[in-house]
Amino acid sequence: MAGSRGAGGQGSGGRGLGLAPGREFDLIRSFFPAAGAAPRADVTVGPGDDCAVVGGGIALSCDMSVEGVHFRREWLSEREIGYRAAAAALSDLAAVAARPIGLLASVALPRGDAEATAAALMEGVTNAAERVGAGVLGGDMSATPGPLVLDITVIGEAKDPVLRCGATPGDSVWVTGDLGGAAAAVTQWLRGETPATELRERFAAPVPRTREALWLHRHRLLHALLDLSDGLAGDVGHLAAASGVAIVLDSAAVPIHPAVRRMAGSADEAFRLAVAGGEDYEICFTAAAGAVESLVAGFQSEFGLRLSRAGWVEEGTGVFLQRRGGGREALALGGFQHFGGAR
Amino acid sequence: MAGSRGAGGQGSGGRGLGLAPGREFDLIRSFFPAAGAAPRADVTVGPGDDCAVVGGGIALSCDMSVEGVHFRREWLSEREIGYRAAAAALSDLAAVAARPIGLLASVALPRGDAEATAAALMEGVTNAAERVGAGVLGGDMSATPGPLVLDITVIGEAKDPVLRCGATPGDSVWVTGDLGGAAAAVTQWLRGETPATELRERFAAPVPRTREALWLHRHRLLHALLDLSDGLAGDVGHLAAASGVAIVLDSAAVPIHPAVRRMAGSADEAFRLAVAGGEDYEICFTAAAGAVESLVAGFQSEFGLRLSRAGWVEEGTGVFLQRRGGGREALALGGFQHFGGAR
Repeated sequence: MAGSRGAGGQGSGGRGLGLAPGREFDLIRSFFPAAGAAPRADVTVGPGDDCAVVGGGIALSCDMSVEGVHFRREWLSEREIGYRAAAAALSDLAAVAARPIGLLASVALPRGDAEATAAALMEGVTNAAERVGAGVLGGDMSATPGPLVLDITVIGEAKDPVLRCGATPGDSVWVTGDLGGAAAAVTQWLRGETPATELRERFAAPVPRTREALWLHRHRLLHALLDLSDGLAGDVGHLAAASGVAIVLDSAAVPIHPAVRRMAGSADEAFRLAVAGGEDYEICFTAAAGAVESLVAGFQSEFGLRLSRAGWVEEGTGVFLQRRGGGREALALGGFQHFGGAR
Repeated sequence: MAGSRGAGGQGSGGRGLGLAPGREFDLIRSFFPAAGAAPRADVTVGPGDDCAVVGGGIALSCDMSVEGVHFRREWLSEREIGYRAAAAALSDLAAVAARPIGLLASVALPRGDAEATAAALMEGVTNAAERVGAGVLGGDMSATPGPLVLDITVIGEAKDPVLRCGATPGDSVWVTGDLGGAAAAVTQWLRGETPATELRERFAAPVPRTREALWLHRHRLLHALLDLSDGLAGDVGHLAAASGVAIVLDSAAVPIHPAVRRMAGSADEAFRLAVAGGEDYEICFTAAAGAVESLVAGFQSEFGLRLSRAGWVEEGTGVFLQRRGGGREALALGGFQHFGGAR
């Protein structure tokens, strides 16, 4: 149980799936044995990235949310459950710089007050879709003897998708927004506390960084891109693995949400929530060294969102943390894993 | 509990969703409040049909399968569960005469032997995809404290999709294959009996009628088309509602699976299984009167599959049964409905 997403796998077509090490990622690897096995003319990007891309530029991804795994009913209203499931899925379109077209919503509904639940869920799903200019194109519905399950499939246009595999030694690693808020809210709920409103919002109402990704792509900055769902350390681990590089995070530069600093009992806890917490649904990209700095002020005024240089790319493999004092350590890739209980 | 699908809703774009009456369809209507509300240039077909169509010819549909609702583990191997979930979803591409490109598979896995289960499910999913020339493009995976859930999203090419709304008074109604086999197998399992192999196969290993639909479409025969998932009576009810017509089924011409006749205790039971049973994943279409007859022999020799004229289209609304003796009755639309307990 915790608040993190189900670790997807649509992808970059290469031989491997480009996922970081870990038990859940082993499972995903076993689950997509055919990854990269059968190249097709009508599939530009196969399993392994944030989206698959077919038909010359249609990006697709699905994201499943399970009650008791990704959320609890005590934490969120039904409208928020629907919104959050759809926003998390739509974030995968931002993660390849795709323009959203629409979504399909599949829901397994516990028997009971199904009409009211379905309507409230769908209101949230629709709000998330409208927020990024996507339509609700259809879906499926089933009863279930178990927990509420939503699976949202998103569809977008990506004639020129940005994948995880383009990070190059020398690149800088950039992150939008502030990290750790969603994980802080979950931590507080699990302790029986009530999160501050701004932390709760980070969990309940994430905003897919669609416009931000398209803006950055229009400025031709993006070498590699993904969204932050598993936690910064785990997600840059995916970037590093897919690109065949090492990534070094600058401990002083990771953007920690101010309310996380206030909530955390120590600087270490705040840092851990920001780096390993997950579900921030910010985006992370690499770009040529020095290419972004002159645009940071414009980005921040356009979107009201921080843009932080959180690290850099080197030759090698793995993810490292560069401490202020000069020490460097390999990062355990943390992040929430459903089957490994890593958090 | 029973073996029928979760009643989808991707669609024909009109004001209503074109679904037959019924509590589950009310639910779906409440679940897609925006249906038809916001026409978009990049959405050719919105909620309500077997697939949505976007981006000038990409057909999409999702289909959710829930343990304890759509199948039981005692009935099917994990490989069969994966195959069947994917085949049912791929049938929705056949239902608009789309050429399959690929699928995304989302799975909520009960904790336990997750690796082996995931691999077996995926083997079945991959087999179903390969059978119709589709690739496995990605997916998502989550743990769940509840039953196994699969949600399969299918993607195909449909520059000229055939929808439910094209049935015209005077048309004939045609059905591929033989009906009632899947429902007969479920009936026997629920009675504690062991179904005959050929009935079990109809439930466990349905074959999406992809090639058949494309063949019929190439012959320019199809006015309206869908696949048979809810049962012939319920599904022609969707056709009738979407097209604004009445459909009359000819009781003597409904193609009942021979093994269903042998299994059933009476001719009435066999007929009921064939008309209301559901999950046969055959296709049903309307065509101009007299247009198909000369091609029936060619179809049957090409596909080894019967093609039966099961009724016709009239002005009006609803679904009727024409009895041999000449009597006509309105058909209760039966079909399996998850929330209404109609069966």
